[in-house]
This record gives sequence, structure tokens and C-alpha cells, in this order.
Amino acid sequence: MESFTIREPDDFHVHLRDGPMLGAVAPYTARQFRRALVMPNLTPPVLTGADADAYRGRIQAQLGENNFKPLMAIKIVDSTTPKMVYEARKLGVIAGKLYPEGVTTNSEDGVRSFEGLYAVFRAMADCGMVLCLHGESPGVFVLDREEHFIEHCLLPLLKTVSNLKVVLEHATTARAVELVPNFGNLAVTITAHHLFLTLDDVIGGMLEPHHFCKPVAKRAADRAALVHAATSGRPRIFLGTDSAPHDISKKECRSGCAGVFTAFSALELVTQVFDERHALSHLENFTSRWGAEFYDLPLNDGSVTLRREPLFVPETIGATVLPSGIRPFRAGQRLPWTATCRSSLVGL
Amino acid sequence: MESFTIREPDDFHVHLRDGPMLGAVAPYTARQFRRALVMPNLTPPVLTGADADAYRGRIQAQLGENNFKPLMAIKIVDSTTPKMVYEARKLGVIAGKLYPEGVTTNSEDGVRSFEGLYAVFRAMADCGMVLCLHGESPGVFVLDREEHFIEHCLLPLLKTVSNLKVVLEHATTARAVELVPNFGNLAVTITAHHLFLTLDDVIGGMLEPHHFCKPVAKRAADRAALVHAATSGRPRIFLGTDSAPHDISKKECRSGCAGVFTAFSALELVTQVFDERHALSHLENFTSRWGAEFYDLPLNDGSVTLRREPLFVPETIGATVLPSGIRPFRAGQRLPWTATCRSSLVGL
Repeated sequence: MESFTIREPDDFHVHLRDGPMLGAVAPYTARQFRRALVMPNLTPPVLTGADADAYRGRIQAQLGENNFKPLMAIKIVDSTTPKMVYEARKLGVIAGKLYPEGVTTNSEDGVRSFEGLYAVFRAMADCGMVLCLHGESPGVFVLDREEHFIEHCLLPLLKTVSNLKVVLEHATTARAVELVPNFGNLAVTITAHHLFLTLDDVIGGMLEPHHFCKPVAKRAADRAALVHAATSGRPRIFLGTDSAPHDISKKECRSGCAGVFTAFSALELVTQVFDERHALSHLENFTSRWGAEFYDLPLNDGSVTLRREPLFVPETIGATVLPSGIRPFRAGQRLPWTATCRSSLVGL
Repeated sequence: MESFTIREPDDFHVHLRDGPMLGAVAPYTARQFRRALVMPNLTPPVLTGADADAYRGRIQAQLGENNFKPLMAIKIVDSTTPKMVYEARKLGVIAGKLYPEGVTTNSEDGVRSFEGLYAVFRAMADCGMVLCLHGESPGVFVLDREEHFIEHCLLPLLKTVSNLKVVLEHATTARAVELVPNFGNLAVTITAHHLFLTLDDVIGGMLEPHHFCKPVAKRAADRAALVHAATSGRPRIFLGTDSAPHDISKKECRSGCAGVFTAFSALELVTQVFDERHALSHLENFTSRWGAEFYDLPLNDGSVTLRREPLFVPETIGATVLPSGIRPFRAGQRLPWTATCRSSLVGL
């Protein structure tokens, strides 16, 4: 197949940041995705509906209102209240994102007491807000954090607040994707980079800071389970890229930030994986259907065409507006597929 | 105990490099250690007795012949012959170091066929040369490489060439230290940094390139096994720091080199661990006895005094002669113990 067309996709987990970084990265997400769920872990964080509204405005000021629809989330912290949830929902916020304390970038204010938030979780269930979880237990050995979180936080939550919709974000273990069929209100997102990487790509040869993210990539068997889950067409398993830009100076340094920037070519990367697995017929479900259905959003109207034409990934993007710029995933390489640009956007 | 004295220690695994790097780091090793087994993975490598002799000369030119005794090793590669072993032994080479291909810094020319070297191993046994192994299987998941090597290379070797003395270098797993009592001709070295680090210190929080080494640090249970093995006074378990300097520009970069530079304070770091375990009475065995006995070397005559006085570790060493300098382990921190300087050495 030399080209094919799919419904316009959504990215249900992306970091667009703020300020100059927002300007540098947002057009790349909007090039391929009609909508994206934008993470609220800014400094200061997006805690309320009003915060989300203001952030939505800053994103739309970059991209134009017609090109791209940001889907907004608030950050769930220990001080979040049911009232804040209801108010945010009224302002169009569709999700609350919860980071356990200290597990990733800007999670120093993350949740310490998961159990203390059950009233908030019930409010979310009540008003139809989805709970998005960074599913790692702090203080646990780095490779065990996701499975520990599943056993000790996620499963008790699913049993206790059984009408809450929960997304276990950026699944990295076989255990995570195996759970999905058992719970109708549970979804997982899978990133583009976790379909490619194992821990060997981070620390198995040289140290590769641009492959370092949280949760860290795991074993080959885990990666295989993720690829299988994504490409087999199962519902409630969909794309959330977790594209997470950091200036190169924050990656190639003494203490490097976690995050892989895939927004330059996320759709093309995912297409490559599906193609290699002879599963292109399931691509649209993963990128454009299961996520929208889980979030009770209408499916997108438009389409994107994928052509089997080389896409060159630059060494750096954003160097003119950022201290050093951002190094995209697969920088300097040619990818086998290219997506048509959804719209003409500033800076691309 | 506010101060105590031990026999002068030896470091049975150190990277001194060559050229300006040699000048920058060798005095730190010589400050604390009477002797050190100097690794031969230079570019080009130390392959013969003549190479080792020349390298010994360059080291002694830096340090003076009386202060410090470099113990020399050749690098065992696929083209090494029994004749090269015998000739090197005659020139005072005490060890042959074997790196499987591609497992660490400058191991691109490492051994591909372990079995193809059995004639070399028999020659080493015959002339009393110790085989030092970087015990990791290439192509295996990074955290499983040491255990895989033990099962598939080390144990068959110990059974087949039962009169060869073998050192499994820089042990990082419980499995490695558990083996030692079972084989009278097997020793392990343990580094200073592996007594402190787990994988969480490398990738569990931010990405920490100065904690990245090969083999990578493992789980807390592995670290505990190493600490227990080192501090319990068992023979054939001794210090080999694997202090491995890299210029900061090769660590804080896009693809970072493996290696932790501990030579600034290796003895003090080890003392700290033994002190915390109330095992100072076993320190001398680990640093100054078991290694020399295994290598059939006389014990050192002199002594070194450890005082419970803060030792400040600088942010950088060698910045005047290297592109960016070297960042020592525990840079910017105060260590609880200070060793008396063995001798007045250039540059310290």
C-alpha cells in the first residue's frame, strides 16, 4: 500500500508547555492531530477550570481556533476539591491528571495520599470527567513502579469507584495492557516511542538521554506486548504520545529531564509500527476512534493521508526561540511514512 | 573510632587512560593506593608485553617509580595467542583482561568467540597469569547480562580450565558474589560506587550520567549483597574501583560514556560503607589483603591512616588539562572520612 487515508487522529496525551516552548512545539502536534489532550503540569500548574480556560486561550492564540482543538485537563493535587472538579467540568475540562509525588517532570507537587482523593474521584465520575493517571508508585524500584501502582492504587480504585473512567497513561508493561479487557471503564494510552524502545535503548549501550522518559522503557517482552495491544485493534487502547519537549540543555546535562519529543512525527512513527506488523487496517482505531469514544467525543470529520515517502527528521527544532532547541525522536533519520499536513501552520 | 591505620591498599581495577588524562587522574589513585592493576583498554589497546612495558613507563613517568607501582595487564582479544601470553608474563604482566565485544568503553575490538580462546586461557593458567573478566554477555537485556555471562561463559570456563585464576570484575549482582565460595580459583572485585548505587540512582529520578557505568547498578537487593560480601571479611572478594574517567563533555552529551570516576576518594568511600556496617575490622582484608593474596603478590609494607574528618569532593578535577575536566563521584559533597596522603605527588 503506497498511500492510504484515515480519519483525522487525536493525541490523548501531549505536553505543549507554555511561552516560547509552546510556540515551538504546538504546530507540530497540530500538523497531524485534530485534537490533543494537553497536560496541565505547567509551572504554576493548571489546577482549575479558569486556569485551563486561560491555557486553552494561549494555545489557540498560537494555532488559530479552527485548525486545532486543545482538549483541556486540570492537575489533580492533594488540595483539589469536588467543587473544583464540577467547576472545571462546566468550563469544558474533560480530564483530571494525577501524578504521584516526584515521579516525573514538575511532579514535586504531586499527590501524596491517593486515598485522600476518593471524594474528588467520585465527583469526577459524577460529572463525567476522566481520571488520567501517571501510574507509577514513588519510592519503588524504577522498573517495578508501574506494576506496583496497578496492584496498590489502580485496582483498588477501579473496585471502589466503579463508575469512574480511568486512563492508565503511557503504559510500559505487559501487565498494564493485559488489564484492559477486564474493566470496561479502564483505558490505556500508549506512546509512539514505547512502541520502539526498550531499556537497552536508554542504558544498554551508551547513555541516551533523548530516549529517557518516565515511565522508562522496559523489557523486550513488554514492548512486544504494547505493540501487540496497539496493533490488534482492541478498544480502550489508544494513542497518547506523551510527547514531552525539553530544551537540549536540560537533557544533555548533569541531571537530565525525562521526556521524549515525538510530536514532529508521532503519526508517522505509529504508522511505521502498524505497517511492520501488517496491521494498517487497525491504525485508525488506535489513532482516531477508541480514544474519542472513551472520552465521549464525536469522531473527527476530516482525514489525513499517509504516503510511503521518506520523512526526514531534523537534528533540532525550535533552536531560534529556545536556548538550544529540542532534539526530536529519531533525529537525523529518515522515516518510511509521511502524513499530509492537516493545515498550513505558522512555523512549519 | 576517630582514626585508625590499615596496611597500604591496592586497587585491582583502575582506568588511568593515557596522555593528558593519565596525568590528570593517576595522582589521585597513587594518593591512596600503593599498587593498582591498570586496565589495558587504551586506543590502541595494550595487547602485548611490550605494549604493557611501554605503558608502565608512561605511568611511572607521571608518578615516579618509588611512589606507586602500576600492575600491568594485557587485553585479551580474538587474536591473542599463547605465545603472547608467555611473553607478556615474562615482562611482568600479571593479568589478561577480556571484554566481550561491545559491552563497554573501547570494547569494539572485544572478544566474539569466548570458546576460541581456551588455548590462551590454558597458557595463562600455565604461567600464572590471572584472567580478568568484564562479565557481561552482549546482546542480552542490560540487567541480565552479568547473570547470563556467569551461566554461559564463566561457569563452563571454571569447569574446563580448573587451574586458571579468574576474577569476575566489578560484580553487580547477588549471584556473582554468591559464587565465590564454590570455586577456590574464582575471585570477584567490587567497586566503590556499586556499594552505593542502584539503578534508581541512574534512571530513577533525573537521568544521572555520572552514575552511569557498565555493568549498570542493579536492584537494592543486589547492592545489599555486594555490601554484605565486601564487609563480611570473606576471602577472594576485594576492591577493584573501576574508576573510569571521562571528560565531562563525553558524559553530559547526546550519547554518554559509561564510567564513574571514584579515584578522588575511593578509599574514603569504601571506609564509609564499612563504618556504616560496623565492619571497619574487615576493611584491610578487602582493600589490602585478599587481592594481593589472590594475585600472589607480597602484602604492602606501609600504612595509611583514616581519620573521621570531612573530605570535600570538588565539582571538577583536571579542568586545566582536559577539555572540560572530570566530575568525581559525590562531587560537591563532604565525605565523613579522610585518608592520609601516601606521598606528595605532583598536582595534588
